[in-house]
Amino acid sequence: MTATAPRESQADCTAHPPVYRFGGGAAEADGRMKELLGGKGAGLAEMSRVGIPVPPGFTITTEVCNAYYAGGATFPAGLAEEVRAGVAHIEQIVGSGFGDLQNPLLVSVRSGARVSMPGMMDTVLNLGLNDATVEGLARVSGNARFAYDSYRRFVAMYGDVVLGLKPASDREHDPFEVLLDARKQARGVALDTELDTADLRALVGEYKALIRERLGVDFPEQPWDQLWGAIGAVFSSWENPRAVAYRGMYGYPSSWGTAVNVQAMVFGNLGDDCATGVVFTREPATGERRLYGEYLLNAQGEDVVAGVRTPQPVGRTAGAPGGESLEELMPQAHAELAEACARLEAHFGDMQDVEFTVQQGRLWILQTRSGKRTGRAMVQIAADLVAEGAIDEREALLRQEPEKLDELLHPTFDRSELTHVIARGLGASPGAAVGRVVFSADDAAQWAERGEAVILVRAETSPEDVVGMRVARGILTARGGATSHAAVVARGMGKCCVTGCGALDIDYHAQSMRISAADGKPVVVRQGDTISLDGATGEVMLGAVALRDPVLPDAFERLMRWADDARRLRVRANADTPEDAALARQFGAEGIGLCRTEHMFFGENRILAVRRMILADDERGRRAALADILPMQRDDFRGILSAMEGFPVTIRLLDPPLHEFLPQQPAEIADVAAALGVAPAEVARRVAALHEFNPMLGHRGVRLAVTYPEIYEVQVRAIMEAACALAAEGVRVVPEIMIPLVGLQDELRMVRASVVAVAESVIAEMGVSVEFTVGTMIELPRACVVADTIAEYADFFSFGTNDLTQTTFGLSRDDASRFLPAYVTQGLLPRDPFVELDREGVGGLIRIGIERGRSVRPGLKIGICGEHGGNPASVEFYHEQGFDYVSCSPYRVPIARLAAAHAALAGAETMLRAD
Amino acid sequence: MTATAPRESQADCTAHPPVYRFGGGAAEADGRMKELLGGKGAGLAEMSRVGIPVPPGFTITTEVCNAYYAGGATFPAGLAEEVRAGVAHIEQIVGSGFGDLQNPLLVSVRSGARVSMPGMMDTVLNLGLNDATVEGLARVSGNARFAYDSYRRFVAMYGDVVLGLKPASDREHDPFEVLLDARKQARGVALDTELDTADLRALVGEYKALIRERLGVDFPEQPWDQLWGAIGAVFSSWENPRAVAYRGMYGYPSSWGTAVNVQAMVFGNLGDDCATGVVFTREPATGERRLYGEYLLNAQGEDVVAGVRTPQPVGRTAGAPGGESLEELMPQAHAELAEACARLEAHFGDMQDVEFTVQQGRLWILQTRSGKRTGRAMVQIAADLVAEGAIDEREALLRQEPEKLDELLHPTFDRSELTHVIARGLGASPGAAVGRVVFSADDAAQWAERGEAVILVRAETSPEDVVGMRVARGILTARGGATSHAAVVARGMGKCCVTGCGALDIDYHAQSMRISAADGKPVVVRQGDTISLDGATGEVMLGAVALRDPVLPDAFERLMRWADDARRLRVRANADTPEDAALARQFGAEGIGLCRTEHMFFGENRILAVRRMILADDERGRRAALADILPMQRDDFRGILSAMEGFPVTIRLLDPPLHEFLPQQPAEIADVAAALGVAPAEVARRVAALHEFNPMLGHRGVRLAVTYPEIYEVQVRAIMEAACALAAEGVRVVPEIMIPLVGLQDELRMVRASVVAVAESVIAEMGVSVEFTVGTMIELPRACVVADTIAEYADFFSFGTNDLTQTTFGLSRDDASRFLPAYVTQGLLPRDPFVELDREGVGGLIRIGIERGRSVRPGLKIGICGEHGGNPASVEFYHEQGFDYVSCSPYRVPIARLAAAHAALAGAETMLRAD
Repeated sequence: MTATAPRESQADCTAHPPVYRFGGGAAEADGRMKELLGGKGAGLAEMSRVGIPVPPGFTITTEVCNAYYAGGATFPAGLAEEVRAGVAHIEQIVGSGFGDLQNPLLVSVRSGARVSMPGMMDTVLNLGLNDATVEGLARVSGNARFAYDSYRRFVAMYGDVVLGLKPASDREHDPFEVLLDARKQARGVALDTELDTADLRALVGEYKALIRERLGVDFPEQPWDQLWGAIGAVFSSWENPRAVAYRGMYGYPSSWGTAVNVQAMVFGNLGDDCATGVVFTREPATGERRLYGEYLLNAQGEDVVAGVRTPQPVGRTAGAPGGESLEELMPQAHAELAEACARLEAHFGDMQDVEFTVQQGRLWILQTRSGKRTGRAMVQIAADLVAEGAIDEREALLRQEPEKLDELLHPTFDRSELTHVIARGLGASPGAAVGRVVFSADDAAQWAERGEAVILVRAETSPEDVVGMRVARGILTARGGATSHAAVVARGMGKCCVTGCGALDIDYHAQSMRISAADGKPVVVRQGDTISLDGATGEVMLGAVALRDPVLPDAFERLMRWADDARRLRVRANADTPEDAALARQFGAEGIGLCRTEHMFFGENRILAVRRMILADDERGRRAALADILPMQRDDFRGILSAMEGFPVTIRLLDPPLHEFLPQQPAEIADVAAALGVAPAEVARRVAALHEFNPMLGHRGVRLAVTYPEIYEVQVRAIMEAACALAAEGVRVVPEIMIPLVGLQDELRMVRASVVAVAESVIAEMGVSVEFTVGTMIELPRACVVADTIAEYADFFSFGTNDLTQTTFGLSRDDASRFLPAYVTQGLLPRDPFVELDREGVGGLIRIGIERGRSVRPGLKIGICGEHGGNPASVEFYHEQGFDYVSCSPYRVPIARLAAAHAALAGAETMLRAD
Repeated sequence: MTATAPRESQADCTAHPPVYRFGGGAAEADGRMKELLGGKGAGLAEMSRVGIPVPPGFTITTEVCNAYYAGGATFPAGLAEEVRAGVAHIEQIVGSGFGDLQNPLLVSVRSGARVSMPGMMDTVLNLGLNDATVEGLARVSGNARFAYDSYRRFVAMYGDVVLGLKPASDREHDPFEVLLDARKQARGVALDTELDTADLRALVGEYKALIRERLGVDFPEQPWDQLWGAIGAVFSSWENPRAVAYRGMYGYPSSWGTAVNVQAMVFGNLGDDCATGVVFTREPATGERRLYGEYLLNAQGEDVVAGVRTPQPVGRTAGAPGGESLEELMPQAHAELAEACARLEAHFGDMQDVEFTVQQGRLWILQTRSGKRTGRAMVQIAADLVAEGAIDEREALLRQEPEKLDELLHPTFDRSELTHVIARGLGASPGAAVGRVVFSADDAAQWAERGEAVILVRAETSPEDVVGMRVARGILTARGGATSHAAVVARGMGKCCVTGCGALDIDYHAQSMRISAADGKPVVVRQGDTISLDGATGEVMLGAVALRDPVLPDAFERLMRWADDARRLRVRANADTPEDAALARQFGAEGIGLCRTEHMFFGENRILAVRRMILADDERGRRAALADILPMQRDDFRGILSAMEGFPVTIRLLDPPLHEFLPQQPAEIADVAAALGVAPAEVARRVAALHEFNPMLGHRGVRLAVTYPEIYEVQVRAIMEAACALAAEGVRVVPEIMIPLVGLQDELRMVRASVVAVAESVIAEMGVSVEFTVGTMIELPRACVVADTIAEYADFFSFGTNDLTQTTFGLSRDDASRFLPAYVTQGLLPRDPFVELDREGVGGLIRIGIERGRSVRPGLKIGICGEHGGNPASVEFYHEQGFDYVSCSPYRVPIARLAAAHAALAGAETMLRAD
């Protein structure tokens, strides 16, 4: 049939040909021409060039788009001829005709800018259908219902996208849907699929009548009119409000324009020699190298997605009854698919997720993209691709998403099971835990001692709960965010934790919690009931969900070695016990960046001595209690230092306010009083006297050393006695003593002098020489501002970004859950600043701190030991700022190693670009 | 007698004559020669030059000191001759002879560097006495006991200072004191004065024997030997460890050296024609221009100080019985004294504190210095001196100590009364208050309503107590520092307040407090007992101490006018009520820099509506309660805006966390529940739900607007309705709307848009045009760091230095009292950073904030509304940093005006010096 011509302007304003064809194993363009052809057009050209059987088509350039706007919504001269040639190109390859009554060619018309703008612009499918060609389609497909359903959809889509028939207001439904619903109702059916061919044909009539009535125009029956209308509509959609807003958000200029892709429609539902499916070039869960996918015979792509029919495997499955795979049923198509997949993977150098259709025995590849995969597969595939010579190690590293490693490092739930999710909190520390509910740390300890797996449930946790947290399989709290006490401690322990689960209403007295489910009646969970926690998703499930243990693949070790070669930043772990230290070493930690000494104070044998110290009336009493604590602390440090042999161990002297060690409940107070032999009222009085309005800003850190110097003295003695004893045994120890919460030069000067004096006297007493350094945490804004004066007395700085974030923002992480979600929802904060470092504010202070610190001590060693130490985006910042190391929980060490490698590779790239 | 010669070096190393003589109405040097003669030597020369009868003497230069050290503790050539001439000069004027047996000349030998180093170096008095001359002194004075007592003291002092007979260790007592004590014990007497001449003579013998025994040398009997020994000792003392440490502290170089002053001793105790006394050239309490002083006949200076005898007035007292004044008893000496005083005042241009002695009818001026005075006298004297033409206005302003103005502005206790001080806390807000003790804000309100003067006593205060604080005469708390809630609010109200009185043990249940006095048995004070509080000294007194009301002298107004002419900084007040606003205007405030809206929420009629708002379940409920609050807030703002007509009023939208408005005690909770018609448990639940771990860092400030935008909307409506109504009546109003606790650009962007929208809709509704601005408090470190982005949406910045200090230091002012005193005691912090701005840390952030803020908005108006706004040292900083204004409590406005003038004058001086 003859092609109608569109309205053409006289302008000749394109530097390149207006149309580029592709398909049939060749293309006029290639994958690098994104600016001219858009991402999709360039991709289709590239696939064609390398012999992938993509449905043929052509791309109208972005220059034409600009010309279209320049000409006042007219097409540039010469375009019509090129489009006609393009359609002829398609007809020739597919063997059908545009508007042909016997074997009509249908095309899709899609937008495609140089960057993906998903859903922002318009698309028209099945173009080329009209009252005549639909009959041809019915005949060719042997399926009149399919033909009319396609026609119905096309008319509606065209009416909406090209002709602009939209709902009159936000409150109105889509008018085509209204007609569809009316017909279903009239026929007494619920599903579209229950309508028959006659219904669909009638609907086409109703749709067209609606268009005429609402818009005063006829639906264009002429396929060429349809095509030019669709091309114009796609160009116009470049300036629709959604697209304009999207570009504004990302700063993309209007001048980029969009290309238009016109491509043959192919159908997998024209008979039993047709099929459609999706295939991964490697197993997306494990990374195994085999085609892994599903298909449906005689079906459309949407049927696979809809799940109405059960798809069959693409490849023959070993051990399965067989006979249903594509490999067996369509060996030729399967062989072509395997060939295309191999070609695609080789070309893109990564595992691909490929959509394909077999139309009458002929394979078409509709789309390919890098396939989504699990953390395990991510690691395996990258390592295999390197082994296969497809990519180099650098590329393999850059392909890793550090956060996804987390999946490999914790046990996970077997999600194939049905689960009863009763509440959802914040996934605060990944992992999966199953256990019986207890509501106090004491119960947790008792139950655990008799071998029970327990989940500790608290409104929130405090340092007193740490013993219970350590023995619990998982922790669930009603309050607190991603960096609440529970979350931080749990992550440090690598323990599953769900926080801020607001639906919990805990009744400690009744030893039960009531969960007000949003969707149903409340559930009551009592002490001893079994629940399951997913620390990644924040789900709380009733009963025991099956668990899968992690096994680290060999590929993981290989990748980590490459990462270690690439990175500059050292990676240490935060660890408080020999067990954690050993675990950290296993994960590749190169030292301990933060060993908190307060957790040791909560040990069963120590807490009483600690409380005696706190409740003592004078220094003499405190020293007596401390003398009992000394040997225990010395053993702690001995364990940690020897577990980290040869690596530095940064030990932070006591940090929390003393009241955290005292009991708060009357019963506990009575116990403590009895143990100490004083009146409960006296203990209660002391507890009350130590109460603080803002403990975060209170009497803690180095301030304890100013008022009670004997505490740090004893801690330093314990550290150095352990270090000297080990050194005498030939163990290499590298203790780094860290003073927390320093804000004034004089604080550090004074405390450093005392630390050095004690350390040197221990060295003299024991007659062993041990090198030690003394540094400070930088966790107050003032410390950053006066870092030059502080650096005079510091061998190292370790940025405590948790507290620095709290003070810089004036934001208590324990209280922020009340309003921080609103901030994120309203877009005031792009993300929780306790999870990813706030580069602008907190980072600005860190920059000042580093610059001033190194201005007086150029070689100053600088690290970070906050929660952000294991956050990949933050690690990049630390790399850029010249940190020496990051420190994070043992379970995040591999993630930090990888992130550090990424930062180094990105940095090298930047330098190259700058050259 | 002949002079013995000292050991002389051959070095001729002094550029100036080695000795300068003074006395007899002339001097060889003058007051400008401090570098050569030291401060004391130059002063004595200056006084001599202008005819003041100072005891004659001579000064050995600092050059000689350096030569002494250069020569290895030898005197330079030629010095001996000059010293002999100097002594001859003294002998000639005084009419006595050095070593003369009949009328012996005694001299003092004193150090004197170019700056005063009090107590750091050595002094020898009564030099020239020996076994022979002491008899001459006894005869001349007619008082053998005096002569031997002088001799005894001289030998001991010489033995210590020159010969170096010191205690063998820190634990040993002064060996001369040991001998004295032994003799007193032997004689069975308690006081030195009970020993007779024979005792003293025997002691001289024992002292000399001790010197011989311990040092192996004889006490030098020869006066010339004594003199050279003393001169050498004074030079040597320049390098003693005390002096070296002192110089190190201030950075004074060793090369300055010290001069030595040798001066005739004069005695006021040689008979009834002798006297000694102290006189102020003006009344130090009132500034009245008259000689004001005391003297004793036939006495030594130390007798006046010791208070053993009651001194008599120098001048004739009107209305007194008379007959005992110096004016009456020694008219000639009195006339000479008056003449000398007039001359001194004219010469130094300031009120002088003059020590004098009359020896045998002859007046000697021993010392003069600027006299200490009360705030009232400070003001009066400066204004009078300007009126008399003695100084100019600039000088008068620089003479004012801003803090001392405080005395003028508050009522004070009449300290002539006997008082029973039962406890001592921190003088947190000056003033004097007498009233009956109550232990709750409610009782304070009830008692005050029936006309009782009450003192509110609390462990600490919270915003709930503000109503009670307002009606109380004074506030006393057991806990909290100079910037605790009680202190800040009280200062804002200009109300007497004593905080942190740790001796109080309050029993709210028994309505009493127990005060454990350090020195005796505890005192119990019950509700209704009367106490008196001194807000300046922190004293708590039992019973009612009489009060004196302040009357502002005319001189004060004059000085303030000069200050206003001199300063660049504007001064505003922090005021929350029309009364405070009016008071602030009286004190010269040029607007309100901080009007807190939360105090209004505690008003009797409002608190219920406020609580309804907080306890509402949803926005609709909150809006309903806010609708009731709106008209009340509108009235508040109407009052304040009209009291400040023509001046800007910065109104801060709601800042504190909502839980501060809710009751905490079960009884109060029950009341509220009843009033609101809900179950007490529901109120209790809500109170518990709003509990915060760190309220300082919690859900407050602009964060309230993010979660409950309706609160600010209603406040802005109230402000603008009041402003528009006033404008319609022709009242000039300048509202400035301030958003607290902003840390993110987007917070301010969003809230500003809402504020502007509400304000403009009110303007449109009321049809009146009112100019308004919208700005923000800068009180978080992050706000300083990102000030450039925040400034894009801020018409003004007001630095909230209270919170900025808390967050920068990571220091809760409510909790700091536990360790801040230790910091100050140990010298870690030079001063409480909540009282005087920490220039290095907090000031460093302020500098960053201003620099970045003005980088995008050069004309950005910048103020400060923290407590530091009224602190003179901090005001200087604000001036230097280019602030536009400071804002402080109304009572501190005059102080800030004066401080601002000082800063401007100092700044001008710096500029002049730089030219």
